[in-house]
Amino acid sequence: MDKELSICLSTSMIESFDLTNKVVVIVDIFRATSVICTALSQGVSEVVAVNEIKEVKSFLNNENYLVAAEREGRIVEGFKFGNSPLSYLDNPNIVGKKLVLTTTNGTRAINSSLDSDEILIGSFLNISSLENILIEKNKDCIIFCSGWKGLVCLEDTLFAGCLASRLLNSNSFFSQCDSVILSRKIYDFAKEDMLNFLIKSSYKERTRELNIGADINFCLSMDKYDDVPFYKNGKLLID
Amino acid sequence: MDKELSICLSTSMIESFDLTNKVVVIVDIFRATSVICTALSQGVSEVVAVNEIKEVKSFLNNENYLVAAEREGRIVEGFKFGNSPLSYLDNPNIVGKKLVLTTTNGTRAINSSLDSDEILIGSFLNISSLENILIEKNKDCIIFCSGWKGLVCLEDTLFAGCLASRLLNSNSFFSQCDSVILSRKIYDFAKEDMLNFLIKSSYKERTRELNIGADINFCLSMDKYDDVPFYKNGKLLID
Repeated sequence: MDKELSICLSTSMIESFDLTNKVVVIVDIFRATSVICTALSQGVSEVVAVNEIKEVKSFLNNENYLVAAEREGRIVEGFKFGNSPLSYLDNPNIVGKKLVLTTTNGTRAINSSLDSDEILIGSFLNISSLENILIEKNKDCIIFCSGWKGLVCLEDTLFAGCLASRLLNSNSFFSQCDSVILSRKIYDFAKEDMLNFLIKSSYKERTRELNIGADINFCLSMDKYDDVPFYKNGKLLID
Repeated sequence: MDKELSICLSTSMIESFDLTNKVVVIVDIFRATSVICTALSQGVSEVVAVNEIKEVKSFLNNENYLVAAEREGRIVEGFKFGNSPLSYLDNPNIVGKKLVLTTTNGTRAINSSLDSDEILIGSFLNISSLENILIEKNKDCIIFCSGWKGLVCLEDTLFAGCLASRLLNSNSFFSQCDSVILSRKIYDFAKEDMLNFLIKSSYKERTRELNIGADINFCLSMDKYDDVPFYKNGKLLID
């Protein structure tokens, strides 16, 4: 019970947190952190997260790199990969390649966390491994929900509530953070049928015409992967 | 169903909202907006909300003004009034006076909303009048929770959820905002015993030594007042 747990509900709030000596878990369930977990577990050798589309363009003609760009939930014109984790499933063309990724919210969250001691990538796909690693570490933890354009989004909040409940139940963390109470309650309410709960959320509006139902089902699956990506020298890697 | 309803959960998020043509309801339940509603309903003639302590100091020797300054939940040294609504109850010395107020969160929220079309002050103390006014107006509405130092706080979220539920049930508003779903769910969970729910929140830690139990009970009381303070030319007034 000696480590403190907090939740930041959106990118716009991160400056209100002191990241010093903390481990920060980046969360962008639909879909950046689900993509990062999937791509690395499926054989991509490293992921570079950048904020601007112009930064990824310079990698377009480099055969060592896969280049992925998403804005407003869609693949940016001129790019082959967007923000769908399914693109990286059972795809021999990605093995051993490096991935450069820019997305609406998730990559910004990663690059806003560089003052922390350590950055990990969280998704439902690797939640149990993540839980175990956080319990073992001797560091306070901030679960950093990317949200949507500076606002709160339900899917990241649900994940934060799920992970927070596990960490607090382990008795190795305490919390004085109202966002933790809020997120745990909402997860408790929705956990039996997250998909149906989310159908009512703004994400339905955000992505109505994008036909990403298969992506959403995949991103809500628990524990498909054991790997927990971490940030090192500008790259996201797994051991 | 033609007016849009959104909730901003903390001051750090307000820049992600477009305030143009909106009516913004400022919420700082513990305790700035509860103080503003109480002071005006009890006879104070106007409230001036300022961000900095140095701005209020110049009013200290002006007998037309009451001067109130709170930081971290406490009266600032050298000031007679802090942020307790009870100071303004049945107090003949306040009648007809002007009040200059600076608080940790609430006054900043007011001064961050000046790009909106209209600013109203919300609290449980005037919630039904506020609900009626918002239903009558032909404007989209943002419920703006002051939160705590850029973070989310439970008591403002509960109020936002309560007001949002009433407005959506009136069928004159729609919402696509995940914070509305979140706030309504939390209010539904806590509404039978808000005090007990809040005892578990970080506010207990924030104010443990301040002995403000009577204030908290008062601030959670519904519909003590019919007046809804509004902002005009730098002042908060009632009709």
